[in-house]
Amino acid sequence: MLEDKNASRTPLEQLGEFGLIKHLTKDFELTHPSSLKGIGDDAAVLDLSAKKTVISTDLLIEGVHFDLSYMPLKHLGYKSVIVNLSDVYAMNAMATQITVSIAVSNRFPLEALEEFYSGVALACKIYGVDMVGGDTTSSTKGMLVSITAIGQVTDEKLVMRTGAKENDLLVVTGDLGGAYLGLQVLEREKQVFKVDPNNQPDLEPYSYIVERQLKPEARKDIVELLEKLEVHPTSMIDISDGLSSEILHLCEQSDVGCNLYEDKIPLDPTVISTSEEFKMDSTMVALSGGEDYELLFTINQKEFPKIKGNPNLTVVGHMTHKNEGAHLISRNGSKIPLIAQGWNSFNGTE
Amino acid sequence: MLEDKNASRTPLEQLGEFGLIKHLTKDFELTHPSSLKGIGDDAAVLDLSAKKTVISTDLLIEGVHFDLSYMPLKHLGYKSVIVNLSDVYAMNAMATQITVSIAVSNRFPLEALEEFYSGVALACKIYGVDMVGGDTTSSTKGMLVSITAIGQVTDEKLVMRTGAKENDLLVVTGDLGGAYLGLQVLEREKQVFKVDPNNQPDLEPYSYIVERQLKPEARKDIVELLEKLEVHPTSMIDISDGLSSEILHLCEQSDVGCNLYEDKIPLDPTVISTSEEFKMDSTMVALSGGEDYELLFTINQKEFPKIKGNPNLTVVGHMTHKNEGAHLISRNGSKIPLIAQGWNSFNGTE
Repeated sequence: MLEDKNASRTPLEQLGEFGLIKHLTKDFELTHPSSLKGIGDDAAVLDLSAKKTVISTDLLIEGVHFDLSYMPLKHLGYKSVIVNLSDVYAMNAMATQITVSIAVSNRFPLEALEEFYSGVALACKIYGVDMVGGDTTSSTKGMLVSITAIGQVTDEKLVMRTGAKENDLLVVTGDLGGAYLGLQVLEREKQVFKVDPNNQPDLEPYSYIVERQLKPEARKDIVELLEKLEVHPTSMIDISDGLSSEILHLCEQSDVGCNLYEDKIPLDPTVISTSEEFKMDSTMVALSGGEDYELLFTINQKEFPKIKGNPNLTVVGHMTHKNEGAHLISRNGSKIPLIAQGWNSFNGTE
Repeated sequence: MLEDKNASRTPLEQLGEFGLIKHLTKDFELTHPSSLKGIGDDAAVLDLSAKKTVISTDLLIEGVHFDLSYMPLKHLGYKSVIVNLSDVYAMNAMATQITVSIAVSNRFPLEALEEFYSGVALACKIYGVDMVGGDTTSSTKGMLVSITAIGQVTDEKLVMRTGAKENDLLVVTGDLGGAYLGLQVLEREKQVFKVDPNNQPDLEPYSYIVERQLKPEARKDIVELLEKLEVHPTSMIDISDGLSSEILHLCEQSDVGCNLYEDKIPLDPTVISTSEEFKMDSTMVALSGGEDYELLFTINQKEFPKIKGNPNLTVVGHMTHKNEGAHLISRNGSKIPLIAQGWNSFNGTE
């Protein structure tokens, strides 16, 4: 509903596979000293000798992870990169390179792929990463994207999910629940559009949460901030599946419990008002809504003065002994076990 | 037609996404000193400080790159890894790690994914690579596989596509055309099976070429052989799209021409007999049939004594001045321009 249906259409067969790759990647430049050779050989060549390397990969499928009826292709390209960079930053590493593979059915003209790659290029530029390789092929149905991100980090800075200790503070960046509610708004407008294609949706009141869904950012700035503040998290994870699910990962992998305080969970006013409009509980939205791509980390209490008052960082709880389990302490003081209601993609049908 | 239809079926929803990843990857061990941390965090952690790193990625789609009606899932897992390792060896590098992402529709039970991963595990074991990460998700149609392979190589050993010089010898490993003809045999049997499901195909006479198609190998042994022989190729590429297409890549990227001699192209007897049976020209099969995963490289003539008589290596031509172009010198001495008839995946329909 957001795309220009009158745009020019160049069939992909016209270019062939190699011509297509060349065309789509011609404007990508290598900027990292560690990117020795990008696209054009059997493999890219990198010099990753300076530090430790982290590598993460994600697969995004049309109809499962994204809906092109409201996701512009440029945004999809951008978001596909962000999703992967977020995993690199969650290791307290700096992202350096990505590979981008896509498969599309022949309903996609060249111009659609150009749009997608313009989003990839923008993310590369903003986050300072090089696209060094990938694959472009046809699919029998729809579009799919597979991205692998590489980052570098020193031994001292590397943060895993495994180091949280009892009494550590639990800290979250930004605010939560926006991306999920943005998706609800877009889905609702899609249904309205189906009934009345002439209806122009007014998304203005929802612009913050719609942007959180369509054009999320990864928290590179937080990795830089932690360095500046000389804060070394004991454990860290990115919030892609909802706060509850990520806390349970940290607890399980660090062998600790957790108390999360409902009244501390950072929510944007739009999240609160839209939750009310959709008759949803805003805490549940933050706990179980995904795709916020904020960071969740733990720090030793001694580090608290360094982060105190920082508008990007909110202490939402503390880690406990493993035997205490993981709980939400609600506004009225009751203790509710946290459960993973993260999104399970295996409910689709063929 | 090769699968046991009575096997047990565990729906994937039963495990959930994290349970599924854990289950499928529980038997994978890390063996490389450079694999510091595999699956289980936001990203894998590698120490790639010793040498230069090469990275390559491929996307394989059911109905485009493979057909599960004759490709057993274990073979698919194996071949998916091989296809990627081949690119690493084509840089004269040693493969060290892979990431494996798959998406499947809900027609696939857990047991199917176990089969697939058993093939991945076998390839990892035989080639000495560690699986360090990946993604597992659902698709709206069929199965798709995305693999990224990482390798390491010293500066001195790295071989690109760009270094071939006039008068260099053109060398090919193994023999060509088998994988393509194996596919033709399998496609023919599939048609026979459709008409008469009780007909048991006799694939015995075609076992070599069917195996070339269903269970190809990557030429790690050649990288080791080149080291032992102290041969340093001036350029190298793997043969995934047919000899003709790969020669043209080397010529274009090294800025040279080439004479390829028809009577030198190594063909297995099964390739010759099956070509006759299918009324195909065996030279065309070698030139344009893909998926052999042999290596094609150039060496300075001075190096010839080192490779002379080696049964794995065949000199098939020599590089010329760029202005002479790239030609096949046929058995009767005529000079035919080489054209890329490599497989173009963009002819499918949605």
